[in-house]
Amino acid sequence: MNYLTKKVSKLAPYVAGMQPREQGWIKLNTNENPYPPSPKVAEALRQADLTDLRLYPDPVSTSLCRAIAEKLNVNAENIFCGNSSDEILALAYQAFLSGKKNVLTPDISYGFYPVWGKMYDVDLKCVPIGDDFAIDAEDYNDANGVILANPNAPTGQALSLAAVEQIVQSNTRGVVIIDEAYIDFADCESAVGLIDKYEHLLVVRTFSKSYALAGLRVGFAVGSEKLLDGLERVKNAFNAYPVNRLSQIGAAAAIRDEAYFNAKCAAIIKTRKRVEGVLNCAPAQANFIFWEVADGSKMYAYFLENKILVRHWEHPRIRNHLRVTIGTPQDMEEFVQCAKKF
Amino acid sequence: MNYLTKKVSKLAPYVAGMQPREQGWIKLNTNENPYPPSPKVAEALRQADLTDLRLYPDPVSTSLCRAIAEKLNVNAENIFCGNSSDEILALAYQAFLSGKKNVLTPDISYGFYPVWGKMYDVDLKCVPIGDDFAIDAEDYNDANGVILANPNAPTGQALSLAAVEQIVQSNTRGVVIIDEAYIDFADCESAVGLIDKYEHLLVVRTFSKSYALAGLRVGFAVGSEKLLDGLERVKNAFNAYPVNRLSQIGAAAAIRDEAYFNAKCAAIIKTRKRVEGVLNCAPAQANFIFWEVADGSKMYAYFLENKILVRHWEHPRIRNHLRVTIGTPQDMEEFVQCAKKF
Repeated sequence: MNYLTKKVSKLAPYVAGMQPREQGWIKLNTNENPYPPSPKVAEALRQADLTDLRLYPDPVSTSLCRAIAEKLNVNAENIFCGNSSDEILALAYQAFLSGKKNVLTPDISYGFYPVWGKMYDVDLKCVPIGDDFAIDAEDYNDANGVILANPNAPTGQALSLAAVEQIVQSNTRGVVIIDEAYIDFADCESAVGLIDKYEHLLVVRTFSKSYALAGLRVGFAVGSEKLLDGLERVKNAFNAYPVNRLSQIGAAAAIRDEAYFNAKCAAIIKTRKRVEGVLNCAPAQANFIFWEVADGSKMYAYFLENKILVRHWEHPRIRNHLRVTIGTPQDMEEFVQCAKKF
Repeated sequence: MNYLTKKVSKLAPYVAGMQPREQGWIKLNTNENPYPPSPKVAEALRQADLTDLRLYPDPVSTSLCRAIAEKLNVNAENIFCGNSSDEILALAYQAFLSGKKNVLTPDISYGFYPVWGKMYDVDLKCVPIGDDFAIDAEDYNDANGVILANPNAPTGQALSLAAVEQIVQSNTRGVVIIDEAYIDFADCESAVGLIDKYEHLLVVRTFSKSYALAGLRVGFAVGSEKLLDGLERVKNAFNAYPVNRLSQIGAAAAIRDEAYFNAKCAAIIKTRKRVEGVLNCAPAQANFIFWEVADGSKMYAYFLENKILVRHWEHPRIRNHLRVTIGTPQDMEEFVQCAKKF
């Protein structure tokens, strides 16, 4: 007997990059940070009172929201924390997009967007990005919602703040969600500065990439109190205490260590530029390169044989591109040497 | 402008017990464990390699599933871990119950069940519990799904394993979910032993109560591989990495320390029995008492004035009952003394 609901039976779930458990791989496939998190994270966790783990966490992550607000120069009331930015995006679909038609998203973007669309009954309309993989703000008008990543993944192309603002202004009937997972590696400006001006703009961020805390699962949204109230309502109809005590402590310590953060982001950008130069890639505004090769499947298999994990998709528009996360300089030296031997 | 979907606008979210941030309260309102978690938890967390936090966690919590399976004497393939049992229950609603009519649940039970019902479009039919607050297995037949807590909360009444099995046998068209959040404090037997016999039975547990890890947010489900595949599908259409690295480590350490676990559960049960004797309560098979008073609202307010937090609901059938979590012997002595002075 099949106990699954019809919708769930038909779902094609998101497939994340391989997570090998054995050692010996150069892992350049899930955009993790090659550097450990700030030493302040370990310090804060070592000092945490672990007897408190018997108590529920603060359901609204008050201290962490304050730390984030201070860094971004916004009010703590404009910050909402979740168990990863994926969780927050899923809540946002349910709060603002569910049941709607004509919600726009780029045809090449984060693979989870269409999965959430199916899961939460959102009729997503995929807008083709240009042949140069650029998003054209002119293509986003009068929609009932917009979800896009800036910088976009896996292309690494970024929109200027003016272009993002144009999209926000041209789509006032629904919520415009800007997923800034990679913004800390980009030249473009964040849309966080626009939230006081547009109550329908939601900016989503993560601690997984630039803060090197993928293992703690913390993301946050920045937006008007009106939108955050919506997220809070859905949260309280799902799981009222989403962020555990240690993740709240660790993430707050990470975001307070600005010097470490800046140094590691700069190091990753420097390595990326070097690798892009060697391989002659179009620049990506992220902690990865998006590299055009003669045959994507073949190249992916070749790296796999050499115990280097990169990311490849069969989508016709990008089948001859590989997304390669920026590792340490040594990782990337091995990667480049391996590439040259192909 | 209202950007919320209609459904979310109309939701009445779950309201958790108060979480005061200042000191000085005797907190007997959210069924937290009065004892700290096993010292093995702190030891495991202190030894954890925190540089690994840069990496995503194991998406399927392999080591933790093994530790749980060993304790419960089932296969690791029959365990599914989540970011709290609340999250798992919400995923189960989406996987198995969404869109269905005639899904049965007791009229007095965990307050989140009807909230998830509204959120995930489940037409829940509330079955009245007896005047003695007992659940009658005879009332649960031919449904398209059943969700019940055993022991039930806030009543503390438990069903025998035979009664649970009768419900499982009488409802084969849908999934029967048994929420065993309080089973470790009960005299009755767990339904985990039935999962090999009934592929439509899902047993859900938590680390929040008996393992004193509410702050780490870990729950798990035990069931057939068929049902767990369903949960996995929904998970991968929502948030692929729900349990962070430290929670996986901490929970595994807790479940392996059986001696500590047994001692603390026994201590809580002993305190409960003593308090039940003093106050002349019907016995509750949980880490709380369910205490009938002359006027529930008045008594709740009285304890609040005395900085003792207990739980009270306005539901007509239980408005003159208070649910009081079992604290330390000292906490309960203060509670009893305060009660006597009313």
